[in-house]
Amino acid sequence: MKIPEKVINRLSLYHFILEDLKESEQFISSTKIAGLLNIDDSQVRKDLKYLENSGKCRVGYKTQELKKRIEECLGFKNKRDAFIIGAGNLGSALAKYDSFKDYGLNILAMFDKDPKKIGTSINGKEVFDFDRIANLINRLNVDIAILTVPRESAQKIANYLSGAGIKYIWNFTPCVLEVPKSVKVWNENLIGSFLQFTNDEIERS
Amino acid sequence: MKIPEKVINRLSLYHFILEDLKESEQFISSTKIAGLLNIDDSQVRKDLKYLENSGKCRVGYKTQELKKRIEECLGFKNKRDAFIIGAGNLGSALAKYDSFKDYGLNILAMFDKDPKKIGTSINGKEVFDFDRIANLINRLNVDIAILTVPRESAQKIANYLSGAGIKYIWNFTPCVLEVPKSVKVWNENLIGSFLQFTNDEIERS
Repeated sequence: MKIPEKVINRLSLYHFILEDLKESEQFISSTKIAGLLNIDDSQVRKDLKYLENSGKCRVGYKTQELKKRIEECLGFKNKRDAFIIGAGNLGSALAKYDSFKDYGLNILAMFDKDPKKIGTSINGKEVFDFDRIANLINRLNVDIAILTVPRESAQKIANYLSGAGIKYIWNFTPCVLEVPKSVKVWNENLIGSFLQFTNDEIERS
Repeated sequence: MKIPEKVINRLSLYHFILEDLKESEQFISSTKIAGLLNIDDSQVRKDLKYLENSGKCRVGYKTQELKKRIEECLGFKNKRDAFIIGAGNLGSALAKYDSFKDYGLNILAMFDKDPKKIGTSINGKEVFDFDRIANLINRLNVDIAILTVPRESAQKIANYLSGAGIKYIWNFTPCVLEVPKSVKVWNENLIGSFLQFTNDEIERS
């Protein structure tokens, strides 16, 4: 049975909580997790049922066991290679975000069209000429592209990436991409996030 | 009636689509929008019912009218002031992301503890000493903080911001924050996003 996307998101948040616990905290209750995330107790218990052997016991969940089970189920150890497209501010920030590696995302290299950036390295990740990407996708068998290019060129580059064998586009641009059915786009919609979380006053008007 | 958070997120994506249409495209169908986002037709129609006068007509929706209604309903013109906490890579990237302004998010200034950063400007946004934040929150009446500090200091800074009058924390750290009930946290969980969108193979195991 597949774990629903929203459950995966929450499981990763539960993992953050477990990471931050002191070593002496051997047990954690679903109530404590739910309280920290301002969600329902029953939601946490339901989510954790997706993990067999979640470490449930009389006083809650065994923290180490639960942490390990989340890691196994979400595949933190199955390294996935990715390229960052666009070595601008956001691309560089993501290249420097070392936590990704702990969760299975391995950024191999970056691509840009700017001659001043090509050949440089950001956090150990070399910036290649975008013209070389098809070749490198093929050679390194990479299927994930993290798209941080300007809005104007996003669709054109998405077309090219789809043709070159990319299967997953993590889209940080404010642009809805048209791609073939074989390609999965995940819109990291920062503007939507902002509007959602400050929406207290949004009413149908 | 409040518009649900998920609907707000999708409405912002519909707005991206409308933004990218050519001027000659006067009408758009719910089928076209749904196809681009790989969601259900009926979902789009249901979402657009939250907007009164959505521009619906016999051949679809009038694009200009629909765009304007989304802008009004999601309050793109209600400017919200925010501070960025942490002038590192991600903080700088967000400071340079000019699109935010079009959607109502106005980043006034940044804060850091690093003496080398204090006094510099990033995209016209001055970096102030973090020690001055309580004073500036108060003086400029800012209630949104965008948190891009290292994981280790995230909780401590969140405590301080909550005490200083911040009401919304947009949390980019991989850390679940414990805050008073009066403060709303939005977890921009990049790791959760990655796991969700590459989850094709995640099964209960």
